[in-house]
Amino acid sequence: MIWHREIPVEFNHCDPAGIVFYPRYFEMTNSVIENFFAEVLAYPYARITMDERHGVPTVRIEADFQAPSRLGERLDFALEVARIGGASTTFALTASASGTTRMTARLTLVWVTPEGRAAAWPEEIRTRLEAFREKTA
Amino acid sequence: MIWHREIPVEFNHCDPAGIVFYPRYFEMTNSVIENFFAEVLAYPYARITMDERHGVPTVRIEADFQAPSRLGERLDFALEVARIGGASTTFALTASASGTTRMTARLTLVWVTPEGRAAAWPEEIRTRLEAFREKTA
Amino acid sequence: MIWHREIPVEFNHCDPAGIVFYPRYFEMTNSVIENFFAEVLAYPYARITMDERHGVPTVRIEADFQAPSRLGERLDFALEVARIGGASTTFALTASASGTTRMTARLTLVWVTPEGRAAAWPEEIRTRLEAFREKTA
Amino acid sequence: MIWHREIPVEFNHCDPAGIVFYPRYFEMTNSVIENFFAEVLAYPYARITMDERHGVPTVRIEADFQAPSRLGERLDFALEVARIGGASTTFALTASASGTTRMTARLTLVWVTPEGRAAAWPEEIRTRLEAFREKTA
Repeated sequence: MIWHREIPVEFNHCDPAGIVFYPRYFEMTNSVIENFFAEVLAYPYARITMDERHGVPTVRIEADFQAPSRLGERLDFALEVARIGGASTTFALTASASGTTRMTARLTLVWVTPEGRAAAWPEEIRTRLEAFREKTA
Repeated sequence: MIWHREIPVEFNHCDPAGIVFYPRYFEMTNSVIENFFAEVLAYPYARITMDERHGVPTVRIEADFQAPSRLGERLDFALEVARIGGASTTFALTASASGTTRMTARLTLVWVTPEGRAAAWPEEIRTRLEAFREKTA
Repeated sequence: MIWHREIPVEFNHCDPAGIVFYPRYFEMTNSVIENFFAEVLAYPYARITMDERHGVPTVRIEADFQAPSRLGERLDFALEVARIGGASTTFALTASASGTTRMTARLTLVWVTPEGRAAAWPEEIRTRLEAFREKTA
Repeated sequence: MIWHREIPVEFNHCDPAGIVFYPRYFEMTNSVIENFFAEVLAYPYARITMDERHGVPTVRIEADFQAPSRLGERLDFALEVARIGGASTTFALTASASGTTRMTARLTLVWVTPEGRAAAWPEEIRTRLEAFREKTA
C-alpha cells in the first residue's frame, strides 16, 4: 500500500535560488508522517503528545535530493511503511512532481514514553501499521 | 467579499507550550495571501518573483493574538482587502477556530520592481483587487 | 538603556529575492527578547517554560519593514523597554545594518500561568525590567 | 582538523516536547556549513549565490539523532571534511552538549552552475578544502 499526500511548494519553502531549502523538505516529511498518523493510523499527534505525553521522535534519516523543486510546483509525497520494529518504524517517502523524483527519504521513528524511553508501539498503532503494510503485497 | 482558507495546526507550528509560535502564524499569513494571489487574482507568486522578477514585500504588519491555537486544530483564515493604494494593498486577516478568534492581522504589501522600487500595481492585479473588494459591499 | 544583539543574515532567513523573509524577522525578534530575558533579566525561557510551566506569549505586534536585509549582512537589534504593565511589557526593537534601519517592531508580551491566564510579573522580573528602563533616563 | 561552532538551543528550535525539532537541526547544519564556507574557505554563501549565481545544494543526508537537545542548552557542532570529490564534498558533523552526542550527520554538497549543473569546485575552494582536511592528519 502506498499513501499519498500533496504539498504545494510555497514561498516560505524556497531559498534564494528559488528552490526548496532542505530543512523545509523535512518540515514536509514531518507533516506527511503526521498526517499519515492522523488519517491512516487514526492516532493524531495531538493525542500522542498533548493528551498522552508520549512522543514519536525521528531517530534516523537518510535522504537523497535528486532534483530541485520550484516555487509553484505541487509535490506528491508517496509513503510506504518499510519496516515495523518493536519500538520503531521506518517510513520510505518519495516526493515527485512532473514525473520526476525530487527527493527520497527513509525516516525511522520511535515510540517513547513521557520519560523519553523507547517502548513497544501501542497495540492500536501496531495493528494498523501492519494492516497498512499488508495491503501493499 | 471575504475569502477563506483553512490551515491545520501541525507539529511544526507549535512551541514548547504546544501552541502556535507567532513566527509560524506569519508563515501562515504569507501562505494565505500567496494563495489569494494565485486563486483570486490569478497572478501566482512564481510568476511575480521567478518569471517577472518583481516582488510583493510586506512593509507593515499589525497583529493581535487573542487566544492560543493548539496542535490539531484547523484554523479558518478570513481575508478581506482593506485598502488599495497606488503601489500598496492592505489585507485584513482573521484566524479563528471553534468559534473564537485566535489572531487578527493587517498586512500591507507593496508592488516592487526588480530594482526594489515601489511601483503602480499592474492593471491586471489592480482590476481584480477592486473587483474582489466591490463584491464585499 | 538600549540593549543590543547582533544577528547575521544567514541562508535560512532569505527568500527567493535573496532578502530576509518576514516570518524569519519574527524568529529574530523572538530570539532577541529571549536573550534579553536570559542576559538582562537573568530569567531564561527554559526556566519560565520548562521548569515553572509559565509562558510569555506575544499578544500584539506592530512592525514596519523600511528596507530589505540581504544574505551576509549583520543586523544590529536594539531593544528598549517601552512600557511595563501589570502583566505585560512592550518592547521596542530596531534592526539596522550599514547605517540604515531595516525593521522596527513593538511587541507586547504577557506573563501567563500554567493555565494560560495573564498574571502579575514575578517581582524578580518586574524589578529588573524597571531597573533596565530607568537606566535609559 | 575539526572546526567547531556553537549554536544555542532557542525557543524557535523546540517542539511541543521542549526538544529540538529535527527540521531545526537541519537549519543548524546548514548554518554550520555556511559559516565554515565563510570563515574557513573564505568564500561566503552571499558571494556564491548572490554575486556569482552558483549554488551548493545538499544532495544527500544521513543523520542519526542519539539523544534529545533541550531549550537553553548550547550545542557544539564539530565539522570534519569527510570526502572531497570532483564536484562534491561530504561533511561529517557531530552535535554534542554536556558530554553526550545528540546528533551526527553526513551531508554531501555539490557545486552547481547558474544552470543547475554539477561542476568542478573552483580552484580556490578546492585548495582550501584540501588544506583544511590535511591539517587533520
